[in-house]
Amino acid sequence: MLEISEIFNAAAVLKGVARKTAIIPAPRINPESEVYLKTENLQLTGSFKLRGAYYKISQLTDEEKARGVIACSAGNHAQGVALGATHNGIKSLICLPAGAPMSKIEATKNYGAEVCLVPGVYDDAYAKAIQLRDEFGYTFIHPFDDPKVIAGQGTIGLEILEQMPDVEAVIVPIGGGGLISGVAFAIKTLRPEIKVYGVQSSGAPSMAASLQEGAIQHLNSVSTIADGIAVKEPGVNTFELCNRYVDEVVTVSDEEIAAAILALIEQQKLVAEGAGAVSVAAAMFNKVPIKGKKTVCLVSGGNIDVNTLSRVITRGLSKSGRNYSFIIDLDDKPGQLSGVCNVVAQQGGNVISVAHERINSSSAINGCTIRMELETRDHDHIADIRKALTDAGYKVVN
Amino acid sequence: MLEISEIFNAAAVLKGVARKTAIIPAPRINPESEVYLKTENLQLTGSFKLRGAYYKISQLTDEEKARGVIACSAGNHAQGVALGATHNGIKSLICLPAGAPMSKIEATKNYGAEVCLVPGVYDDAYAKAIQLRDEFGYTFIHPFDDPKVIAGQGTIGLEILEQMPDVEAVIVPIGGGGLISGVAFAIKTLRPEIKVYGVQSSGAPSMAASLQEGAIQHLNSVSTIADGIAVKEPGVNTFELCNRYVDEVVTVSDEEIAAAILALIEQQKLVAEGAGAVSVAAAMFNKVPIKGKKTVCLVSGGNIDVNTLSRVITRGLSKSGRNYSFIIDLDDKPGQLSGVCNVVAQQGGNVISVAHERINSSSAINGCTIRMELETRDHDHIADIRKALTDAGYKVVN
Repeated sequence: MLEISEIFNAAAVLKGVARKTAIIPAPRINPESEVYLKTENLQLTGSFKLRGAYYKISQLTDEEKARGVIACSAGNHAQGVALGATHNGIKSLICLPAGAPMSKIEATKNYGAEVCLVPGVYDDAYAKAIQLRDEFGYTFIHPFDDPKVIAGQGTIGLEILEQMPDVEAVIVPIGGGGLISGVAFAIKTLRPEIKVYGVQSSGAPSMAASLQEGAIQHLNSVSTIADGIAVKEPGVNTFELCNRYVDEVVTVSDEEIAAAILALIEQQKLVAEGAGAVSVAAAMFNKVPIKGKKTVCLVSGGNIDVNTLSRVITRGLSKSGRNYSFIIDLDDKPGQLSGVCNVVAQQGGNVISVAHERINSSSAINGCTIRMELETRDHDHIADIRKALTDAGYKVVN
Repeated sequence: MLEISEIFNAAAVLKGVARKTAIIPAPRINPESEVYLKTENLQLTGSFKLRGAYYKISQLTDEEKARGVIACSAGNHAQGVALGATHNGIKSLICLPAGAPMSKIEATKNYGAEVCLVPGVYDDAYAKAIQLRDEFGYTFIHPFDDPKVIAGQGTIGLEILEQMPDVEAVIVPIGGGGLISGVAFAIKTLRPEIKVYGVQSSGAPSMAASLQEGAIQHLNSVSTIADGIAVKEPGVNTFELCNRYVDEVVTVSDEEIAAAILALIEQQKLVAEGAGAVSVAAAMFNKVPIKGKKTVCLVSGGNIDVNTLSRVITRGLSKSGRNYSFIIDLDDKPGQLSGVCNVVAQQGGNVISVAHERINSSSAINGCTIRMELETRDHDHIADIRKALTDAGYKVVN
């Protein structure tokens, strides 16, 4: 179904359109491996999706182009199709679930697409797109299971081989499987000795389950912070290609994904979305055998909702001891809050919030409770504050 | 004091050490200009400081090298000197104020430096470094006012000219002035028609004030989220170079810096520290005359404390309508909280926190107050929620 010549052709078509994104060293991700990042989060539109969508659209017949294209997406594919169509001078209509983040809706419009907001979830938007295609004759651009789309994504494989000829392993995120199908096909065809590993979220392991069962599996529900790869069922083509060309598919948890996002921010100054960070999470938490190997993690996209990013950072701050919440039970008399605040101030803790409660089923009848949230430097700093409060006679819970 | 040949020499020395960081298009920063980013936040150590420190250390005599180097810094210069010294096989001792973020202290140690934590602020650490230099004969590496350091930073100017020969304007952050002195000297020597603009924080405008007065000014206090450029007084050399080679120096507010940091995250998937984002802030808020011009904003570093980053994001979320806090006064009877929650749920608001208070001087004697914080989609979504609450008979404050 796929020829290596088609991927070279896609690379020629994409020249001057898609950026040849940099490969950046990431020395602290896994101390036993030599890790690099292929930064497709810095691609135009913020993800690799532009490559496949643009190439697919460029290969349509004039008649198909004249009819315009339609796609359904809650995110990156929408922006890729919109920009791909606009660059090729044709009309695009994108069906989005009505609850999609405003930022993604606006971005899709800015790239020149007409947007159709469909009440409900992704499946409803998909049904609407198919209905509109049948009614008006638009050409439907599948997000992952189209050989031309797969060929476009495969150009990343060619770039990795060119930019880092001595690479030994490549780790690639998997949602529907379009990205890894193209990358693995290109790499295994040209350099079969290089390992290609796939990563899914443990909350949406459709390809992992399908490969294990030897047949396509349909998940009834998916739940993960990596919304870009929350896909219930792999494609027919992508399943076949993964079965043949991918060495192993592993999964990572939401906690691991969040830790990878935070590591990319702190160590690499890069913003990745959950789907884009699963490859890094797999390397960080030793999910794949890359010890001693020169390894490229494909960071597939950076379109993370800022509310989600804020939550990931908050979680990470607590885990690394830079945020500390505690509760103290006290006698209810004047000066108590002041006393606690003095101890905290002497220790250099920075108060974020305070709740002082008198009526509380767990406190004594003449007691009260103070709950305080602090900015702290690290776990040692928290221990110092705890000790100072205890030494001053306060009973600290947490 | 500076020769262009020295900057070419620095570039040769830095080859294979400092990364030639990418220049990335940033089409949405200023719609009337063609903006690009020179991404020194992706430099090794997370900032440009490595260049000057490494080049300076490489040019020391064997005797100076044998004595080891000392520096004082609360951040990026520390990491630059540490890595520069280690690469050159010599010892480094870095004085840091004791309150410096653990992440920066750890990074400095990881690059091979010995760290001396000095109680107090930057000025105390500086005094300690000078004392240790005098006592033990270490070579002091100045963070900005040394011609070799300036020459190292100037290599960024050469790279910009090579990577983008048709650039028309370059915008550069200013703290002590080492970075812009090198960049402006290189660019104006080779291509005098290109404009070079400098940007300071309005909370630390030492170079701007000095240029305006025609003599070096000393600020008694500085206060800005851009801690990397919170410098009270420019150097003698940097003042002269800026006076001669920089077209204009402007200032930006903390609010504008925060907006630039958030824009870089959302639009460019890049993490910048406050000092690194002032160039982008100047372009976003039309502080410099770049209309119609091909402009490079130098993003000088990405070492932002994650607590600060979290605050910047929270501020940005409120400003863009993705976070909404409101207060409702109610009669104190069962079912009130449930009623409010139902309205919020129907409108798709996601509850972050709730405070329900009975005793409150502003509420009626039989009244209570509910304060609620929500995740919202945008300002229209907030208006919808407000209207639904008002229609249901609730009195909404805020």
